Amino acid sequence: MNEFDLIRKYFTRPAPNTLLGIGDDAALLQVGTGNVLAVSSDMLVSGTHFLPDTDPFLLGHKTLAVNLSDIAAMGATPRWATLAIALPEADEAWLEKFSAGFFALAQQHGVDLVGGDTTRGPLNLCVTIFGEVPAQQALRRSGAQPGDEVWVSGTLGDAALALAHLQGRIELSGEELATCAQVLHQPQPRVALGLALRGIASSAIDISDGLLADLGHILEASRAGAQIDLASLPVSLAMQPHAATPPGMQCILSGGDDYELCFTAPGARHAEITAIGSRLSLRLSCIGNIVAGNGCIVHDAAGNQLNPGSGGYEHFR
Amino acid sequence: MNEFDLIRKYFTRPAPNTLLGIGDDAALLQVGTGNVLAVSSDMLVSGTHFLPDTDPFLLGHKTLAVNLSDIAAMGATPRWATLAIALPEADEAWLEKFSAGFFALAQQHGVDLVGGDTTRGPLNLCVTIFGEVPAQQALRRSGAQPGDEVWVSGTLGDAALALAHLQGRIELSGEELATCAQVLHQPQPRVALGLALRGIASSAIDISDGLLADLGHILEASRAGAQIDLASLPVSLAMQPHAATPPGMQCILSGGDDYELCFTAPGARHAEITAIGSRLSLRLSCIGNIVAGNGCIVHDAAGNQLNPGSGGYEHFR
Repeated sequence: MNEFDLIRKYFTRPAPNTLLGIGDDAALLQVGTGNVLAVSSDMLVSGTHFLPDTDPFLLGHKTLAVNLSDIAAMGATPRWATLAIALPEADEAWLEKFSAGFFALAQQHGVDLVGGDTTRGPLNLCVTIFGEVPAQQALRRSGAQPGDEVWVSGTLGDAALALAHLQGRIELSGEELATCAQVLHQPQPRVALGLALRGIASSAIDISDGLLADLGHILEASRAGAQIDLASLPVSLAMQPHAATPPGMQCILSGGDDYELCFTAPGARHAEITAIGSRLSLRLSCIGNIVAGNGCIVHDAAGNQLNPGSGGYEHFR
Repeated sequence: MNEFDLIRKYFTRPAPNTLLGIGDDAALLQVGTGNVLAVSSDMLVSGTHFLPDTDPFLLGHKTLAVNLSDIAAMGATPRWATLAIALPEADEAWLEKFSAGFFALAQQHGVDLVGGDTTRGPLNLCVTIFGEVPAQQALRRSGAQPGDEVWVSGTLGDAALALAHLQGRIELSGEELATCAQVLHQPQPRVALGLALRGIASSAIDISDGLLADLGHILEASRAGAQIDLASLPVSLAMQPHAATPPGMQCILSGGDDYELCFTAPGARHAEITAIGSRLSLRLSCIGNIVAGNGCIVHDAAGNQLNPGSGGYEHFR
């Protein structure tokens, strides 16, 4: 089976929203009138972003999910993706499961796979994703203003907590692990939330490197600071027993891979945002405020100021 | 130096044609009214597509060039690219040269680098490129018609000849090697030719896997056959002494990595195509005809039919 057969068998599916899909030198995409294209690329490398024995179905899901999360953070509608894969060998059982996981999530979000590359090499997965958004409604990182509230979706640190358990740094019960591992292996990109926040949020980012690091990107782009209330940070039932411990707090503040959204909005939109959370059955928590200045200050319940550093995941550090 | 510093230092350049470039969750691109987006991804893997000690400046050039070649083969105007890199370590000397080679070619073609990813892992380079083209003028693979002529740009097999020398399968003189190595390491994507062929060519593809393999893709997509005249295949001065030898002929018919265009056009457009070649100072050779049926038949000067097989480069074969 050569790469053309592989592509035909595992990666060619109907692309109903595409002018010209897989099989030419390039795909042709029609962007809707009044919309701009939102584009993002994420590369997942075996041994860096996932363990070599990761379930390929879950890996297919996650490869697309982390990219969809970027589109969600722009408030864009996901439309198309390309997928470039380097594989050590043409392992058909692996490819079948990987592509099933990829396409299950793609279908759920109406994303057409329109092109890519299949080649031999150490396992590497590179997706470029394309969304559409009216230019003025894109959720940039740079729009946060002093007085805005800071929000996060879902709960924080669960993916990092699962990883800490898998790496023997913390001990979770079976039930706790099940909850957290689901977040680590099968994150749910917050696409519907991103769309609902158009015209409401003043800035947004997805939490891939940890709350403090990613909120830090908003603050840097917006030239502003933030005050965060530790007690208001949303944690799961699985996290609760660990939340006050140093490794638990580390997960909450600096754990990557959650793929929740962190966003800011004027206080006047508070009730609307609460209503969006109810409509989407998604926990949305107001965790602090944007202030003049720079950097992020975290207070505990007693009013003491923590100095946690950003601590987000960095390659090459 | 973490990945954010790397991106800032080596990969963030002005992006004058971009609504929002590097530094947010996604880039925002404005596609011109009446145009559609042409999108293609190519992944280059160390040890598969290039040798680990390849000059990083030339590698930066080639990484973008192979992608530009796909845009050229669609008749599109290249506009934007994303670049995802996995690197074993943050080697700044390497990055400086690689990015210089990449941006030198990007600037030449007016391409803005708008996003990507930088991560740790075995050396892997994945570019997604974006061009614009009026929907009806895109050069697809599927439009070849019996009676059309088959054309190629430049000369064939030089990159493969250089590789054959480097791998000790053939012996080139110093001057021959210099010519051919230039094609192998610094291919020139035929962007201006692709644009000139809008409304003239009935189909087009870039020659990355070898003439017979890539012409084969046109024939398959167009449900047609081709008759090719061996004597009409354009070869360089460096190739001439080797053209009649089995390895030379193999390079000409099935050598990959030339990144010339192979295209078809009605015979009535012959003079126009010749004029385009003159205007672009680019050799354009009519090498045969599209016929009813399927597959490609190659005749030598005596009228004997060769049966060379497609022989293009295939991963996983």
